[in-house]
Amino acid sequence: MAIGIISTLLAKSETILSSDHSSIVSMNICVALLCACIVIGHLLEESRWMNESITALAIGICTGIVILLTSGWKSSHILVFSEDLFFIYLLPPIIFNAGFQVKKKQFFRNFMTIMLFGAIGTLISFAIISAGAIHFFQKMNIGTLTIGDFLAIGSIFSATDSVCTLQVLNQDETPLLYSLVFGEGVVNDATSVVLFNAIQNFDLSNINSAICLQFVGNFLYLFISSTLLGVLTGLLSAYIIKKLYFGRHSTDREVALMILMAYLSYMLAELLDLSGILTVFFCGIVMSHYTWHNVTESSRVTTKHTFATLSFVAETFIFLYVGMDALDIEKWSVISDSPGTSVGVSSILLGLILVGRAAFVFPLSFISNLTKKNPNEKIHFKQQVTIWWAGLMRGAVSMALAYNQFTNSGHTQLRGNAMMITSTITVVLFSTVVFGLMTKPLVRILLPSPKHLSRMISSEPSTPKSFIVPLLGNGNETEGGDQSNRNVTRPTSLRMLLSTPSHTVHYYWRKFDDAFMRPVFGGRGFVPFVPGSPTDQNGHQWN
Amino acid sequence: MAIGIISTLLAKSETILSSDHSSIVSMNICVALLCACIVIGHLLEESRWMNESITALAIGICTGIVILLTSGWKSSHILVFSEDLFFIYLLPPIIFNAGFQVKKKQFFRNFMTIMLFGAIGTLISFAIISAGAIHFFQKMNIGTLTIGDFLAIGSIFSATDSVCTLQVLNQDETPLLYSLVFGEGVVNDATSVVLFNAIQNFDLSNINSAICLQFVGNFLYLFISSTLLGVLTGLLSAYIIKKLYFGRHSTDREVALMILMAYLSYMLAELLDLSGILTVFFCGIVMSHYTWHNVTESSRVTTKHTFATLSFVAETFIFLYVGMDALDIEKWSVISDSPGTSVGVSSILLGLILVGRAAFVFPLSFISNLTKKNPNEKIHFKQQVTIWWAGLMRGAVSMALAYNQFTNSGHTQLRGNAMMITSTITVVLFSTVVFGLMTKPLVRILLPSPKHLSRMISSEPSTPKSFIVPLLGNGNETEGGDQSNRNVTRPTSLRMLLSTPSHTVHYYWRKFDDAFMRPVFGGRGFVPFVPGSPTDQNGHQWN
Repeated sequence: MAIGIISTLLAKSETILSSDHSSIVSMNICVALLCACIVIGHLLEESRWMNESITALAIGICTGIVILLTSGWKSSHILVFSEDLFFIYLLPPIIFNAGFQVKKKQFFRNFMTIMLFGAIGTLISFAIISAGAIHFFQKMNIGTLTIGDFLAIGSIFSATDSVCTLQVLNQDETPLLYSLVFGEGVVNDATSVVLFNAIQNFDLSNINSAICLQFVGNFLYLFISSTLLGVLTGLLSAYIIKKLYFGRHSTDREVALMILMAYLSYMLAELLDLSGILTVFFCGIVMSHYTWHNVTESSRVTTKHTFATLSFVAETFIFLYVGMDALDIEKWSVISDSPGTSVGVSSILLGLILVGRAAFVFPLSFISNLTKKNPNEKIHFKQQVTIWWAGLMRGAVSMALAYNQFTNSGHTQLRGNAMMITSTITVVLFSTVVFGLMTKPLVRILLPSPKHLSRMISSEPSTPKSFIVPLLGNGNETEGGDQSNRNVTRPTSLRMLLSTPSHTVHYYWRKFDDAFMRPVFGGRGFVPFVPGSPTDQNGHQWN
Repeated sequence: MAIGIISTLLAKSETILSSDHSSIVSMNICVALLCACIVIGHLLEESRWMNESITALAIGICTGIVILLTSGWKSSHILVFSEDLFFIYLLPPIIFNAGFQVKKKQFFRNFMTIMLFGAIGTLISFAIISAGAIHFFQKMNIGTLTIGDFLAIGSIFSATDSVCTLQVLNQDETPLLYSLVFGEGVVNDATSVVLFNAIQNFDLSNINSAICLQFVGNFLYLFISSTLLGVLTGLLSAYIIKKLYFGRHSTDREVALMILMAYLSYMLAELLDLSGILTVFFCGIVMSHYTWHNVTESSRVTTKHTFATLSFVAETFIFLYVGMDALDIEKWSVISDSPGTSVGVSSILLGLILVGRAAFVFPLSFISNLTKKNPNEKIHFKQQVTIWWAGLMRGAVSMALAYNQFTNSGHTQLRGNAMMITSTITVVLFSTVVFGLMTKPLVRILLPSPKHLSRMISSEPSTPKSFIVPLLGNGNETEGGDQSNRNVTRPTSLRMLLSTPSHTVHYYWRKFDDAFMRPVFGGRGFVPFVPGSPTDQNGHQWN
């Protein structure tokens, strides 16, 4: 029955493929599958092992099989994987929402550790995976791969899947881990993409210290200018909305302006060849800190849920698509004569990912612990294992980069290239499903009392995530509420700055924020107080 | 300064046009212009004459001039007008939101009048414009046009701009007029598109009564099946959300499912060659009547504003684009040798539109008034003039159909075709700007006491537009509250049905709704009551 319908649809899609409506059939299937993912993901919510990504992957693979059967082993997907689709439409809402919902205090307190992991760690991982690939693959019969290809493999498999991580770790249960792993993921995305572009553009035949220095300079320039662009766009949106006071006339204008300006920040970064991921992430942070407090209550509820919904749909679509793409018959047929080699390559890559990540998580955690005095802020061994494990998943960024490097607009006939594409698909599927399935139980075993942990390490209450708190607790604005914050009241000497740098920076930032930024750009405590805000809790009152 | 930046951007766009990022520059400009439209539209809100459409049109024309100057008179737009973009992405959210926010009681009470205006009226208008075009244009030197072209002109210029109408009339001030003009607009859109497709597909050389009958049958089939599809999709979404109770876990899932299923209804209709406009309109009505009451409070606020925002952005984009497209140098240069003819053609078309609309509004209003007993429900002469005037604007549907008929993917060199495209642009611009500017003052002069009017003709309080009322007034579900409803309590005889058919239908529908539909699909009064809902009023409390 279902096969009959899809068969008819496919037949129809062939007849109208020449017309303007060629995409309608694909879009129908995609939208229907997205609905199915939401409903089935909801039904499996209570399951101990499954998460939404794995559900979407499974549905994608099943759909791929059905399409493959009905189309007579010709094609398994209805849309060609497009980097544009991914980088221009799907990734921005996910990363923006992550910045919008992230617990800002946690994130900035661990800023140095996150940078260490995200930038230095990714470089270590890249070096190990590239070296390993050169060492192992040159002995195997997998077609011609240049030195550029090997370095590209290093950067492709250094890109962790921050999307998947977000679904596995819980911000409220393990805030330190969440902020570390997720923050690392964002910086890692940026580093990998920068690395990848550098490898494609730089002349790799003569690498010397000048080029390395140029590369480091390039990275620093990218990081700083991308961040600044995001912050400036966010502040501009806050200023416009505060000055013009849109809510007076229409909530819809506020919501539209926030969405459009967030997207504009990403597109501007892409236009200026910066890292859109970093830009839109910091734009999200600034918007949740200033802009979000300047809009009406309706706009707050709407933006919070709209951003989350967009992100959710984009994530589901990515996993659905990766699942459908896994059965890409064109690439599998090229390497079908040597299944052993294919399994070998995938296993080696998985091993290199495991080793490459271990090689920076444990040493860098040790270094990070040296700078912390407070034992609560140190990263314990069990937490290190969790960080190592939670970042092993590879996802859509790896897929997009692999398609860019090894195919010509989605197609390849070269044996080596096809091998790398299928290996990437295998690694992505295996790491997402197997590592992903095991992460939830692992976190439960390694960190048995997350409630206790979250109480020790204070969480930022002013994020949109729990926006009833800032409104009710408006009177005691400078509450702090956590031990570590009390330690740093009134640091008067340089010694203090050196011993607890991030706390001191945070203290002065807060003074600056209260004295200058919030009066100009708005923000919590600088907009009129409206009593009796319900909204978020209602979800639990319905039975 | 600004010209310099755009010049750089264009130079950049040319260099990267061959790469994957060709669209990034265009997208940056579009998003930035959309932001500008929102901000400037907000600043001009208080203006007596301007509305958002005209602002967007003006910004579009200015941008077109700047691009034209910087590109050296080569091109005035950055995106080629695409029917797919318009019909697949921009139109569905606008029409869906219209259905979602429409005052349902008003709409269904005037259903027969709306159908009369939308279907019969459009046919009359089509006949007059086609006949006029044949009569006048064959004498003028405007290149070769076939009989199919003339009939296409009739259907192109019969398509009123429901988007623009929505912005000019106010649902709360003039509910009867709004529901008539807007309802007519939706049916009119469907009729025009059906007519246009019929003209392109049917064999026009031998028109006989059998083909006419076939055409009428085709139209009825389209209307009924499109409506049914929309209603069924809406009911399915209500049933799924009621049964699975998404809000328990996540508001985002509910919002995502509502958006996706609404879009799915449109795409399914397009897939089945039905009228997506009608489908998504009725899907919106059903979703606001059932689905919207089954979701959490957060989801209600979010969906209400998200749909409105999407619709608002799509509308703004359409007008922005029509403005930019107005200076399409390629078509203007083809007809530049005969400016007099061009002005003549445009004037004749505008005249035909005026006459064609007058020819059905006044007679059909007379017929409609014959069926009404209650003088409050009759359409007075001043209201007829307003209906006639408010539907004179032509917009994006006309543009899209004209591009489809007279160009080959946006380009044409034929003199007759270029003449028709530029005339369409002129008519759209002139009618939107001049007629649009004059509508607000006209409504104020013709209908001086809208407050009084709106009190006479009761408005439906249960739409999302004012969703605090249904929650607070939950106890007296069967309130009615309007005079006309009290008249029809317990109609027991067939005579009653014949004298006040729509009221009786409404009464039985309500009984059926309470007894069967709402218990199954949810809806107001059939979901748990949550006290203390703020949300909508808050917008006015902030000063």
